[in-house]
Amino acid sequence: MQDRVAPSALKPALRDFSADHRLLSINTATVRRQGDLATIIEACARAQIRAISPWRDQVAHIGLPRAVEAVKATGLALSGYCRGGMFPADPARLPEVRDDNRRAVDEAEALGASCLVLVVGGLPQYARPGSAPSKDIGAARAMVEDGIGTLLEYARSAHMPLAIEPLHPMYAADRACVNTMGQALDICDRLDPERSGMLGVALDVFHVWWDPDLSAQIVRAGRDRLLAYHVCDWLVPMADMLNDRGMMGDGVIDLKAIRAQVEAQGYQGFAEVEIFSEHWWAKPMEEVLGTCISRHRSVV
Amino acid sequence: MQDRVAPSALKPALRDFSADHRLLSINTATVRRQGDLATIIEACARAQIRAISPWRDQVAHIGLPRAVEAVKATGLALSGYCRGGMFPADPARLPEVRDDNRRAVDEAEALGASCLVLVVGGLPQYARPGSAPSKDIGAARAMVEDGIGTLLEYARSAHMPLAIEPLHPMYAADRACVNTMGQALDICDRLDPERSGMLGVALDVFHVWWDPDLSAQIVRAGRDRLLAYHVCDWLVPMADMLNDRGMMGDGVIDLKAIRAQVEAQGYQGFAEVEIFSEHWWAKPMEEVLGTCISRHRSVV
Repeated sequence: MQDRVAPSALKPALRDFSADHRLLSINTATVRRQGDLATIIEACARAQIRAISPWRDQVAHIGLPRAVEAVKATGLALSGYCRGGMFPADPARLPEVRDDNRRAVDEAEALGASCLVLVVGGLPQYARPGSAPSKDIGAARAMVEDGIGTLLEYARSAHMPLAIEPLHPMYAADRACVNTMGQALDICDRLDPERSGMLGVALDVFHVWWDPDLSAQIVRAGRDRLLAYHVCDWLVPMADMLNDRGMMGDGVIDLKAIRAQVEAQGYQGFAEVEIFSEHWWAKPMEEVLGTCISRHRSVV
Repeated sequence: MQDRVAPSALKPALRDFSADHRLLSINTATVRRQGDLATIIEACARAQIRAISPWRDQVAHIGLPRAVEAVKATGLALSGYCRGGMFPADPARLPEVRDDNRRAVDEAEALGASCLVLVVGGLPQYARPGSAPSKDIGAARAMVEDGIGTLLEYARSAHMPLAIEPLHPMYAADRACVNTMGQALDICDRLDPERSGMLGVALDVFHVWWDPDLSAQIVRAGRDRLLAYHVCDWLVPMADMLNDRGMMGDGVIDLKAIRAQVEAQGYQGFAEVEIFSEHWWAKPMEEVLGTCISRHRSVV
């Protein structure tokens, strides 16, 4: 049997991206300044891109029926739908939070997304503006877990997996108080101990590349909890904490090393490019998509 | 015996800062634009501030002998000396790294500092510019641990405790690849398993406030490894990743909650104000120091 041990069993798996871009997905925020969702979908189809991950505001802008129609017409897959979440809020606003997130599940289902990505929110005054200010991040985290638990029941009935996206700790106050893979997986363990496949994580290298515990947590997640894989790069220096993410290869993240670990768990999904960048938003859509394709083949 | 249980045994300890500012220390970077170290020391003495933590470049600017003399003349304590570190480097440059850090220990000793704060460095091209570029943060972390281990022998002979300062993950690439209390304490456990008091951590709330594991790691550190406690605040929004730290009370950090946990471990040292801020650097030194004093008494 010795001679049947494949090389892939001796080192982390890594799918070959060099020949084509079948496994590339474009998060549509990457080119949100260059056109509306219909225009982005057409441009992606022209570039033979096979998957996208759209944002709710982009869908709302052209209307859900038209978005569904455009996705169907082009045959694009959806590697995710962005985004549900923003759970921490004043008690009086929890019904609003619940309904808003249920609509996100419904939209994801209508669009045929593979999962709904959750950006969970930070302190309540930022997650749901108008909520009473708080400095209690522990309380915000408890509200997040309650919110996900509540949404999960609804998501199960819609067969729509929820992907918790841990955000970089620099966004802990205002965007997401789930800041590490370990923290996200703790929530998964508590809310979905049976590992049903309906709750997992979206791993974005920008948010987690620094974590000394990353490798161990990727193994812990395993294939059934790795629901999405997002790439961009971390620039040094970074001009802006929100809108200066780098194109893959332009920063310091060891992209292939992380992807190898994710794929060693059996991840077979897309590598989704999500870049918030004033630099790239200022360029023509075709140039940005072309660069995503070439970097996908060379450095992702 | 029941009636001998003090209230402090039933809740986290918290020293009363409201009556005076005996436990305030000023990290001299907080007012580095407003004057040289001699001027800062005079201003602190006038404001009846009892401790400072100076930076090497500020000491070098006026010369070590003059700095030592000014500290002695005013009777100021040093809650730390900033900073040693920046360990990752090309192999050929390791003697330079070693010698540079030994000089930092010598200076800290001459000044009578309570500890040398270590900002450990990120990837080698940023820690020691000119070193070969690398994306291998794991290798950088190994170099950091080697560097601290080497320096620790020298520091022991000089009786100068080394305080590893975990820096916020947003500085992992370019400033410090030790980014959590847990990671710093892992290094302490490996290099100083006997808990000699010669190796510990500097806890700066700006860097660690977001960490879901913070409370557990403060307990793990214990009194003998909590060598310094730094305060400022986390502003939302933050205009600049490096130089927009907030004055205590102006941001989202629950300062008293963190200090209570630190003091529950028996920490008896200063609360050191370290604020890198274009906003505060533009104000007169007396105004900044006065604000530090009032906020120390009210919100720290």
